Amino acid sequence: MIHSLSLADVVADHARSRPQVTAVVDGDLRLTYPELDARVTRLAGALAGAGVAGGDRVLWLGQNSYAVLELLLACSRLGAVFCPANWRQSEDELRFVLSDLTPSAVVWQPSDLTTALRAGAARTPAWIQAGDEYERLLADATPREFAQVADTEPVLALYTAAFSGRPRAALLSSAALVAHATQLLVVRQMEPGFTFLNNGPLFHVGTMMFCLATLQISGTNVFTPAFDPQEVCRLIDAERVTQAFLFGQMIDAVTQANAGGKYDLSSLRFVSHSAEWDDMITVDDSPWCRSKMGGYGQTEVGGMLTFLGLAEGGAGFAGRPGPLVQVRMLGPDGEEVPAGEVGEICARGKTLFSGYFARPDVNAVKLAGGWHHTGDLGRREPDGTITFIGPKLRMIKSGAENVYPAEVERALKTHPAVADAAVIGVPDPTWHQAVKAIVALRPDAQVTPDDLVEHVRGLLASYKKPRHVEFVDAIPKHGFTPDYDALDRAHGGGNYPGI
Amino acid sequence: MIHSLSLADVVADHARSRPQVTAVVDGDLRLTYPELDARVTRLAGALAGAGVAGGDRVLWLGQNSYAVLELLLACSRLGAVFCPANWRQSEDELRFVLSDLTPSAVVWQPSDLTTALRAGAARTPAWIQAGDEYERLLADATPREFAQVADTEPVLALYTAAFSGRPRAALLSSAALVAHATQLLVVRQMEPGFTFLNNGPLFHVGTMMFCLATLQISGTNVFTPAFDPQEVCRLIDAERVTQAFLFGQMIDAVTQANAGGKYDLSSLRFVSHSAEWDDMITVDDSPWCRSKMGGYGQTEVGGMLTFLGLAEGGAGFAGRPGPLVQVRMLGPDGEEVPAGEVGEICARGKTLFSGYFARPDVNAVKLAGGWHHTGDLGRREPDGTITFIGPKLRMIKSGAENVYPAEVERALKTHPAVADAAVIGVPDPTWHQAVKAIVALRPDAQVTPDDLVEHVRGLLASYKKPRHVEFVDAIPKHGFTPDYDALDRAHGGGNYPGI
Repeated sequence: MIHSLSLADVVADHARSRPQVTAVVDGDLRLTYPELDARVTRLAGALAGAGVAGGDRVLWLGQNSYAVLELLLACSRLGAVFCPANWRQSEDELRFVLSDLTPSAVVWQPSDLTTALRAGAARTPAWIQAGDEYERLLADATPREFAQVADTEPVLALYTAAFSGRPRAALLSSAALVAHATQLLVVRQMEPGFTFLNNGPLFHVGTMMFCLATLQISGTNVFTPAFDPQEVCRLIDAERVTQAFLFGQMIDAVTQANAGGKYDLSSLRFVSHSAEWDDMITVDDSPWCRSKMGGYGQTEVGGMLTFLGLAEGGAGFAGRPGPLVQVRMLGPDGEEVPAGEVGEICARGKTLFSGYFARPDVNAVKLAGGWHHTGDLGRREPDGTITFIGPKLRMIKSGAENVYPAEVERALKTHPAVADAAVIGVPDPTWHQAVKAIVALRPDAQVTPDDLVEHVRGLLASYKKPRHVEFVDAIPKHGFTPDYDALDRAHGGGNYPGI
Repeated sequence: MIHSLSLADVVADHARSRPQVTAVVDGDLRLTYPELDARVTRLAGALAGAGVAGGDRVLWLGQNSYAVLELLLACSRLGAVFCPANWRQSEDELRFVLSDLTPSAVVWQPSDLTTALRAGAARTPAWIQAGDEYERLLADATPREFAQVADTEPVLALYTAAFSGRPRAALLSSAALVAHATQLLVVRQMEPGFTFLNNGPLFHVGTMMFCLATLQISGTNVFTPAFDPQEVCRLIDAERVTQAFLFGQMIDAVTQANAGGKYDLSSLRFVSHSAEWDDMITVDDSPWCRSKMGGYGQTEVGGMLTFLGLAEGGAGFAGRPGPLVQVRMLGPDGEEVPAGEVGEICARGKTLFSGYFARPDVNAVKLAGGWHHTGDLGRREPDGTITFIGPKLRMIKSGAENVYPAEVERALKTHPAVADAAVIGVPDPTWHQAVKAIVALRPDAQVTPDDLVEHVRGLLASYKKPRHVEFVDAIPKHGFTPDYDALDRAHGGGNYPGI
């Protein structure tokens, strides 16, 4: 255990090494690291008193709050697993999470949704209301010491998007979260004094990973319930925020909210966006730009796996792997595919998750051969950088060759006449399957099937080109992903290997 | 094993992610990362062929060389332990290392010393001569695959200075070395493109830790056999070196060697030193100055434990702990002492060693209670920064109180009349021991014993002040450390608890 460093250990050291630094700001609440450390110990005691034992789950039903970080750290001290639920989900979806995760304690913010969930839930878990009840429990907890918890134990469960069926809870250990945070410190050159505004959802790894990197470098985490442009401006000004979770339209909304220049946003070091925005903030044009988010990631790798900031004008727009992971493009046989060819992005290293909660069958498949199979396709470019191709939803087997729909779709979409495209496999007596393209054209565009086939042949190996092309008005979708089952039914797909 | 990342794994990923980057320069030899990766695999095969099995030791007897890095990485791939011996040691000392480490293979550079050692050594280990024989073995190795080696296995053994008796080999795992390297990347904001000149001795952790951090960020390691000011200038110029292992008089020597301005040293980003030096190099005055070495460290923590760069004008001159470790000041009872009081510097975390080779008894004491006891005394200042006091060689017990000689010596030496001082414990019928100061005064200085006692009383708790003061011409020394045994014999010391 001499090598163990849990999230709670990180805070325990900050309490000693940075006694004057503000760790948490949320409304009127301000906590230094020693105060946070002491509250985390009391909260761990309160949870233990409410029946939470090592390995048990604690569920948060609510918006962003200081309590999310405190509960995560208290679970770390106690050896339990914390899950911040996605509060944007429906009652049915949250009911699934409750039954899937079987938490021993639920900490909830009152709303119509949580009230309904609580009324319908089994009586088993302890329900603790955020706010007064939470604070009372914390104040009443008997101070006690906790035995060291191995940092290889899971401490955070994040439900990840499911393309089909129900979501799964990815389990992340303290070791993985600390490693991922450290990797962000390296790639973003984060420093003590970093002040992060948690305005993105903490149930998503994108915000959580910056919250934890800020913790790791003994910075200040500022919490706000959800994205409100006016409040974001006020908090950046009041807390001299150096970084926030902002993209595209969110940046426009913040710029508009501060159009009169009421708030001083100059503490924010951010990527250039528009003339108005650049005038308000401090533009960070260093290669280490703290707010540049390019790369490839997913919850299962702890957040980011590859970083554009490590690619310096490379060919692949997903950049290069972080210093604490290994990445390989593997074929269906588990062997590495050569540079320039598409394979499944597979990963190994310090930041990786520990499998999904209570899904031994899925874990065996995803972690086969000692590599995590991301379910996404990528290509290693000759300069070593990585291109993300798309999700590996299924594979077409044409003769001895493997064809991934996402790669052919990408090629089709580079044709100026194509608005959208999806690729399926149709049964073929000679080749087992043949590649079929379903294509929606741009308004008034004129193109023949042969034109498109030739276009793809110019970009990819010949066996990947479609043998059949069918035009439709629109591709049916599940969110951003083609509804392949509907496409198969409508256009004769089927006979996929392994399905 | 999904979370494992060995040193050999790091190079395997660089070979894919940075195929064009130069990894190693040594004389005419230049290796890209793919070339280094391939050679390491061949060398691992050659070592296996020479009889080196997992857990076995491989000893290097020679100066700095690309072979030091290759052998370390090959041992990582193979699961063996590499030890670069201190070639400045005597034949007797190196004979001890051979008998203590019992290596399965010795790679040696010819010299009078290694020839004598080889002649007198048992026939058991394989002796491989650096240069032609090494290259031939590597070229002849049958290519093979190696099973993944857990990064928790020891991979590097470094003999550390022994204050009394024989040195011990501190074992460092890949996980600890990767964590320490990553910590250096964070604290020094190291970037791809970092080019490190290995001009300090690679058998010492001070140079080795920069070599490995350079490897971690996929930089370039330039090797030179030993410190030669002229050659250092030539290599900085030729390889656009960004960092080297230079201090005080070494910097003066380099400045002098380049007095005529023959070499362009402007690629070097270094701490300011003298007007001539500052004119030659690029002065790095950032808080992250890559060459600022302040802090506290030892081989057993992987290199550095605390960093001045994380202290921003704090009170303690050893700075603050790195982000991947915990530090506590513990008293003799194993309990933490309050801030402001002196205790033993104890550490835990990702960078720590795995104990000493074949020293179970010492390991049990050093790692008692889940903390590594550094054997050094320190104090946590009220601002959380750390002051290094001195080695904890022994403790004086005066009544119920513990008095560490190093702390009292430090206080005595702040008196302008004192040139040097050592503190011992003398038997005392009432207090078990009494504090006795042995003091060497500056030439012509005038001071009474009472003056010195009053001086110490003004700086430390009263029970720490000397009860006896004796003046001598000079303090007997072992290197930098007082010879306490000689002092006890000459001045009546003894009755120490636990001795």
